Amino acid sequence: MPDADMPILFTYEWVPDFPRGYVRDLRIRWLFHEMGQPYRVETVTFAPKRADHLAMQPFGQVPAVRWRGRSWFETGAMLLGLASGHPTLLPEDRRADITEWLFAAANSVEMSTQPWILANASLAAPQIFGPAPASEVIERFAQRMKSKLGAMETVLTNRDWLAGGFTIADILMADVLRITGDKGGLEGYPVLQSYVARATARPAFLKAHADQMAHWHAADATRAAVA
Amino acid sequence: MPDADMPILFTYEWVPDFPRGYVRDLRIRWLFHEMGQPYRVETVTFAPKRADHLAMQPFGQVPAVRWRGRSWFETGAMLLGLASGHPTLLPEDRRADITEWLFAAANSVEMSTQPWILANASLAAPQIFGPAPASEVIERFAQRMKSKLGAMETVLTNRDWLAGGFTIADILMADVLRITGDKGGLEGYPVLQSYVARATARPAFLKAHADQMAHWHAADATRAAVA
Repeated sequence: MPDADMPILFTYEWVPDFPRGYVRDLRIRWLFHEMGQPYRVETVTFAPKRADHLAMQPFGQVPAVRWRGRSWFETGAMLLGLASGHPTLLPEDRRADITEWLFAAANSVEMSTQPWILANASLAAPQIFGPAPASEVIERFAQRMKSKLGAMETVLTNRDWLAGGFTIADILMADVLRITGDKGGLEGYPVLQSYVARATARPAFLKAHADQMAHWHAADATRAAVA
Repeated sequence: MPDADMPILFTYEWVPDFPRGYVRDLRIRWLFHEMGQPYRVETVTFAPKRADHLAMQPFGQVPAVRWRGRSWFETGAMLLGLASGHPTLLPEDRRADITEWLFAAANSVEMSTQPWILANASLAAPQIFGPAPASEVIERFAQRMKSKLGAMETVLTNRDWLAGGFTIADILMADVLRITGDKGGLEGYPVLQSYVARATARPAFLKAHADQMAHWHAADATRAAVA
């Protein structure tokens, strides 16, 4: 395959240990491995943000993707755009259901898990995540999260995947829930734990995770060589 | 138009004063008015959640829509699904850009504005919104919000709308920013203030807002008649 046809995935050149395995480029690596689509990685700086980075990704976040003459931002939009036409990851007759679950993951669910995750991160590392909320505030965040997790527990009780077979909706939802579970947020939700375990046992997830970790290890080696 | 072809928008039968004008059904009313599409309203209870409500909307939220043989949840997905084929609200050659901005509004932006809005709501009404975070925690929420608002201020500096002409992306982004602005969050962002003013001056927004307010007033009258 000529280089010009290969997607370029942009991620940070280096991050410290704590976000490794969680940087959102993993979702797009996962997609490409599910598609059997080779990709190559280019890097952007965390700070200061480069102009070419902000031109692709207005918030200066990662990932961004450049492929087929355009660049992409927001993982939900990338999943819909990059998987378009794929017969199993985004079957046209399930597009509406899949789109609903992508927004459910990106908005209803992650908007409820993120405050709880960040509050707990503040408890562990206030120098990075800012002052921790009081325990009764964190408890309120937990309640809001549990109302959404309880709904998802019901949804997934009698199905393996959200929209028929495994689709891009499961990439986003399972990754949002994986991050929550790794922080201890899925205790009491056995169905969601099984769902995350099922999703993250897929070879494409395992390759994506290994790819991301290899990227950070290579970045460490480059830093060590320069130092 | 026969009744069976008219979309049904589901919203709450009644809400107290504070969320009036902000309940998310407004976004879909706005869409229908932009489309010139008549719709009718049916109601669901806030609590307990009815089974037919949860069957359409797994989180028990509103809005839900039933149209053309299926039901819809998540406003981002509804906008993409219900406006499909519309030549100006969702032009096919801008679908990718529009999808990016819908996810940006639903995830990157609203995930940063919501914690700050809820924290301020807690300060005003802890009996409803739970205990308020300490001021230094709210300040951290404000910082996270401002990093996203600053990016959007740059994006909108030299354009009226996000993706060419006015599209469904502006319905979602402008409504997320309108709610933020009404809580005082857009101070120092004149471009975003202008964008919200421009969007909310559209006849379709004004009709949607009036429709929602009329719904609550009618609900008040029904309650008064029953009492």
